[in-house]
Amino acid sequence: MKVKRSERLIDITQYLMARPKTLIPLTFFSARYESAKSSISEDLAIVKRTFAARGTGILQTVPGAAGGVRYIPAVSREFAETFLQSMAARLAEKERLLPGGYVYLSDLLGQPTILNDIGRLIATQYVRNSVDVVMTVATKGIPIAQATASFLNVPFVIVRRDSKVTEGSTVSVNYVSGSSNRIEKMELSKRSLREGAKVLVVDDFMKGGGTVNGMRTLINEFDAELVGIAVFAEAIFSGKPMVSNYSSLLRVDDVDTEAQTIVANPGNYLEKTTFLEDLTQAVPER
Amino acid sequence: MKVKRSERLIDITQYLMARPKTLIPLTFFSARYESAKSSISEDLAIVKRTFAARGTGILQTVPGAAGGVRYIPAVSREFAETFLQSMAARLAEKERLLPGGYVYLSDLLGQPTILNDIGRLIATQYVRNSVDVVMTVATKGIPIAQATASFLNVPFVIVRRDSKVTEGSTVSVNYVSGSSNRIEKMELSKRSLREGAKVLVVDDFMKGGGTVNGMRTLINEFDAELVGIAVFAEAIFSGKPMVSNYSSLLRVDDVDTEAQTIVANPGNYLEKTTFLEDLTQAVPER
Repeated sequence: MKVKRSERLIDITQYLMARPKTLIPLTFFSARYESAKSSISEDLAIVKRTFAARGTGILQTVPGAAGGVRYIPAVSREFAETFLQSMAARLAEKERLLPGGYVYLSDLLGQPTILNDIGRLIATQYVRNSVDVVMTVATKGIPIAQATASFLNVPFVIVRRDSKVTEGSTVSVNYVSGSSNRIEKMELSKRSLREGAKVLVVDDFMKGGGTVNGMRTLINEFDAELVGIAVFAEAIFSGKPMVSNYSSLLRVDDVDTEAQTIVANPGNYLEKTTFLEDLTQAVPER
Repeated sequence: MKVKRSERLIDITQYLMARPKTLIPLTFFSARYESAKSSISEDLAIVKRTFAARGTGILQTVPGAAGGVRYIPAVSREFAETFLQSMAARLAEKERLLPGGYVYLSDLLGQPTILNDIGRLIATQYVRNSVDVVMTVATKGIPIAQATASFLNVPFVIVRRDSKVTEGSTVSVNYVSGSSNRIEKMELSKRSLREGAKVLVVDDFMKGGGTVNGMRTLINEFDAELVGIAVFAEAIFSGKPMVSNYSSLLRVDDVDTEAQTIVANPGNYLEKTTFLEDLTQAVPER
């Protein structure tokens, strides 16, 4: 039975949103709704316009026999700025202050709506890169990796600090924890990363960059390739950081344990990212 | 500027899908599109019908001044059966066999599309319950908790086996690992769970039920309430399991390390769940 335009638009929207970065041939939709390809093309033009107008993302049209459409989640600069300002305000809540000047983040990183926005923001930055896999280290990086991977539509892998029989053979490396200067060990299941894979590293928090640097060593051990490093929050570090090329959504500029204050601001992410409004024509068709 | 119906339908769909289980007043949409409430009502009727027809979920209409609409993700029995059969086939791949008869799952639990489906399935089972928070234990349960929490639109909390300064004060309990019979320790940040919270426990794998039972003890320590237990896969356990009331998406029935075979089937989830087709009238309006 032929399906009406109104129903097609609703179903196309939900179908595309559930499959970011996936190329869907027009023939798929035309079979699904028993509708002419010309009608589907008109539908997709309306979806494209609405996604752009509402900041939902880019609907990319790939012409030709192997073509189709692809939903690319990306946020606008305004959305990113508003979100990061509100997150910076949350980080500065003085109840987050922990002994030793640490900042409690687990509540924020346990909220699906916040994680979704974090994932959309990081995915926006890397939307033009070819990313095969997102990597993080257990434990608190995992939700960020999952959210980011979900919008890039790639798998994520979890580096661990402990050995687990359920991981099979692993490759392990030693690394220097930047803040404590101690030698630690991290490992990754051998079968989880193939040679040449393009890896985006994400983590919740970065101070000296030691953990992130450990993941970089691990990526080398697998003969894989580092695409970029994105962290939720970075702290001002007095020493020489172990990585220089990374982006941070937020920056903790000062923690005063005596006055019980935290100063937080958006990180360098805003300078490093091309947003929805400037992306539309620039995303490669692959 | 007034927005056309076609654009409204697309935007309403993406807006609702990004906010499962959230009540949205009709006035919100009528302001967003500068359209009459009667037009919005008609839009929502079309969305509701399409979501039901395509198995996207339930669009619940709550009447009255405090009313609105709410998108409730739920899957059909057919969808669940197909997904679980395909997952059972994946689990039975002999390359998953690890020394000691363990089954490698990390690749499956690192794929956002699979995790999304796992989350939708578990959320469907608990769609009529009041759940305040999803709980899991690090590491491999985290992606399942995040996916489930995302569809239930509640936060998730992570129980840890190690102490971390970034968690602040914690409550810890000892538990007996069912399979190894060893006493272990798990802990949860004190501020992450409030008294009386209704907790849904999820985990990746269950054998003796010791870990899940540990989480139950922890929930008692917080004077919170256990709503249910859902695991991705359970293994046949020869002893007396420590928990009896749980649901498993999959069951590993046999692992033969000599013949290098794994036998896996859908778990008890299918018997324990009411699906989309029978849910429509039965979801409480809260």
